[in-house]
Amino acid sequence: MKKVGVAILGLGVVGGGTYKALTEHREFYKKNHGVDIVVESVLERNKERAASLGVERNAIAQNIGEICNNPQVDIVVEVLGGVEPAKSFVLAVLNAGKSVVTSNKELFCKYWHELEEAAKLNGCGLFYEATCVGGVPIIRSLLDTLQVNKITSLTGIVNSTTNYILTKMTDSGMTYKDALKKAQSLGYAEADPKMDVDGFDPVYKLSILSSLAFHTKVPYTKIYREGITEIDSTDLLYGKRLGYVLKLLAIGKNTDSGIEVRVHPALIKSTHPLAGVNDSYNAVYISGDCVEDVMLYGRGAGALPTASAIASDIIYFATHDNFNYTTFENTENADPATKFITDFKSAYYIRLQAYDMGAQTKAKSVLEKYGITAEPVIFENSGVKGVGTIIFVTDETSESNIHKAVEEINSCKGLVSVASLIRVCQ
Amino acid sequence: MKKVGVAILGLGVVGGGTYKALTEHREFYKKNHGVDIVVESVLERNKERAASLGVERNAIAQNIGEICNNPQVDIVVEVLGGVEPAKSFVLAVLNAGKSVVTSNKELFCKYWHELEEAAKLNGCGLFYEATCVGGVPIIRSLLDTLQVNKITSLTGIVNSTTNYILTKMTDSGMTYKDALKKAQSLGYAEADPKMDVDGFDPVYKLSILSSLAFHTKVPYTKIYREGITEIDSTDLLYGKRLGYVLKLLAIGKNTDSGIEVRVHPALIKSTHPLAGVNDSYNAVYISGDCVEDVMLYGRGAGALPTASAIASDIIYFATHDNFNYTTFENTENADPATKFITDFKSAYYIRLQAYDMGAQTKAKSVLEKYGITAEPVIFENSGVKGVGTIIFVTDETSESNIHKAVEEINSCKGLVSVASLIRVCQ
Repeated sequence: MKKVGVAILGLGVVGGGTYKALTEHREFYKKNHGVDIVVESVLERNKERAASLGVERNAIAQNIGEICNNPQVDIVVEVLGGVEPAKSFVLAVLNAGKSVVTSNKELFCKYWHELEEAAKLNGCGLFYEATCVGGVPIIRSLLDTLQVNKITSLTGIVNSTTNYILTKMTDSGMTYKDALKKAQSLGYAEADPKMDVDGFDPVYKLSILSSLAFHTKVPYTKIYREGITEIDSTDLLYGKRLGYVLKLLAIGKNTDSGIEVRVHPALIKSTHPLAGVNDSYNAVYISGDCVEDVMLYGRGAGALPTASAIASDIIYFATHDNFNYTTFENTENADPATKFITDFKSAYYIRLQAYDMGAQTKAKSVLEKYGITAEPVIFENSGVKGVGTIIFVTDETSESNIHKAVEEINSCKGLVSVASLIRVCQ
Repeated sequence: MKKVGVAILGLGVVGGGTYKALTEHREFYKKNHGVDIVVESVLERNKERAASLGVERNAIAQNIGEICNNPQVDIVVEVLGGVEPAKSFVLAVLNAGKSVVTSNKELFCKYWHELEEAAKLNGCGLFYEATCVGGVPIIRSLLDTLQVNKITSLTGIVNSTTNYILTKMTDSGMTYKDALKKAQSLGYAEADPKMDVDGFDPVYKLSILSSLAFHTKVPYTKIYREGITEIDSTDLLYGKRLGYVLKLLAIGKNTDSGIEVRVHPALIKSTHPLAGVNDSYNAVYISGDCVEDVMLYGRGAGALPTASAIASDIIYFATHDNFNYTTFENTENADPATKFITDFKSAYYIRLQAYDMGAQTKAKSVLEKYGITAEPVIFENSGVKGVGTIIFVTDETSESNIHKAVEEINSCKGLVSVASLIRVCQ
């Protein structure tokens, strides 16, 4: 029986889960896949942590060099996170002729081209199913099944922390701050939640996913980014009344005019399949020219779901003789021929604070001046005549246009001002 | 550039879609996958049909032998449907050393073992993504990404015709007969709808999917089957009031006590991700020991979605040097060690017709006699005292047990009778 030796770099949540999954499933893999997967080595400073997982003392490497030089190791799992030392370690093991599996979206998204070059040069596999959406088989599907489609759009809920926070805010009317605290107390959010709540993590994932989907490099630097820290639960409640749910969406579009990539909160119709993706679940909704609409849904994070993706890459490595890395030319920057749309179009939800009777008429006339069709969908009087909340939902218009209109509305001091502006995904 | 020659057996809806997808995407495949996919030959009696698709006269084979002997053909797409002549044709091309892609669930489910044996013997690939759930990448995911999990359950909406009919019945209160007529007029149901409405098609798919998911052969003959022809739209409306949606479910479970496989209508909570799968959309919801819950959703049928699955198999064939057929020993019958549970457990929705005041008490006491806990959830008086409709939802009990209880309730002539019994999926 073919034996495959594995090393794991980092025994944190995901690394520990991977160690557990691989060791506990050893007989299962032997029986069903005809391969013997053996964890030969781990790199983990915390010796107690390693011991508590059952790692034998002599399997704990002192440094990356030991793993590079270990002839028993065929494939290395990198689950350290962050750019360094992960990058140096991955390049070292690739140059030592060992294949790599990574769950590190930041490293992968930023240095994919460099890692792939090293992998190809050394005839090694480079696997990254675990970088995006936990155990949901999105990468392999983009590489091996949906690859035949001209994918026109991809809309994802790809960050569990923010989806948990937004679900709590929607379901129980919690403020952003309280929901974040709850997420932190449950271990769903980091002490410093910046990566998630400011949208960096979904940007990294969207860069990887849209590059694969659109068969061209989409560098993360091209992605518009807006997090959820400014979301007011008031708007979630109004949204609900209007039949919308607020989600942090990662949106990629590939049209004749160019590629459009953006991560921002958006209201989505409550009947859309993505609207029901709650808590720490994630999903990616894809439209292709042949397959039409497809959605892949599941746990977006967590030790074992991510370990499932990692283990599947290891079994793939063990049972396939050749590997495909990607289906596009993996350069550092975008192909110069690729046009990126930055002044993208969207429908908008606008919540206005009215201070005077003429507010609604004024706001509507400003919107009309900019060619924006919109009807007021909610008007709530605060008790004083003409004063209250007005909500418009507009037709599609450009970002630059709506911002000009908002600026002009806000210049009507004492009459009306814009309290919230949220994109509506149609 | 590597060239791959394709032959298509049958230019019906799916075959025509495949021809179109392959020819129109030729440059796309060349650019992104580095392979030139050329349709070299088709087998189609209707010459006009072939001509209308743009097939050149000399590319129309006169018989299967011509395709077997055509050195330009590397892989053959079988989309004829039914067992014969599809089976003979597939075996002939495999024995001629050509790989096969099929969308034929009946042939595949019944003769998988024989086709795989022939493929292995001749060193050919055997691909079947298109047999299940249209363009949804479920087969490849079970083979290449979810394969590392001990999958404990799989619940699918895997038949588009019945899902369309049930959606129409639910949304607009149509009777089964009217909804079927509408489906037929739109081409969603065959003139003879037996394969779909009696549940044969989902049984074939469940056999394939559960064999892969549970890593052991699950012959279709082991699957309990019940169609949708007896569904009364009254129960869909009561179901809706109780927070349930009725779906034709394909359910596979793999527990310590054995494997349980069944296709039947069932009420499912309206908050379950499967409840939102409407019209001709399909989905498969999978629970695995690492990945937890995953759902794959998309168009379950149609020319181009199915062509997407077929094309993806062809590109996979063209870009991989070795193929995995399955992850279990593909025998004709089940492994003698596999235990199948036939007296399975479920919760039940029971609609009772009451003819007398004591009906509810009587029914409850009969259920209690069989150890079945149930509370009446709806009681509707028809105007005459004690006469009307009573609905119970029970806790989990066995099939044999509930049927005994139903029989005893029905023996109370003139007092109470069971109008409907529907399983509730929890």
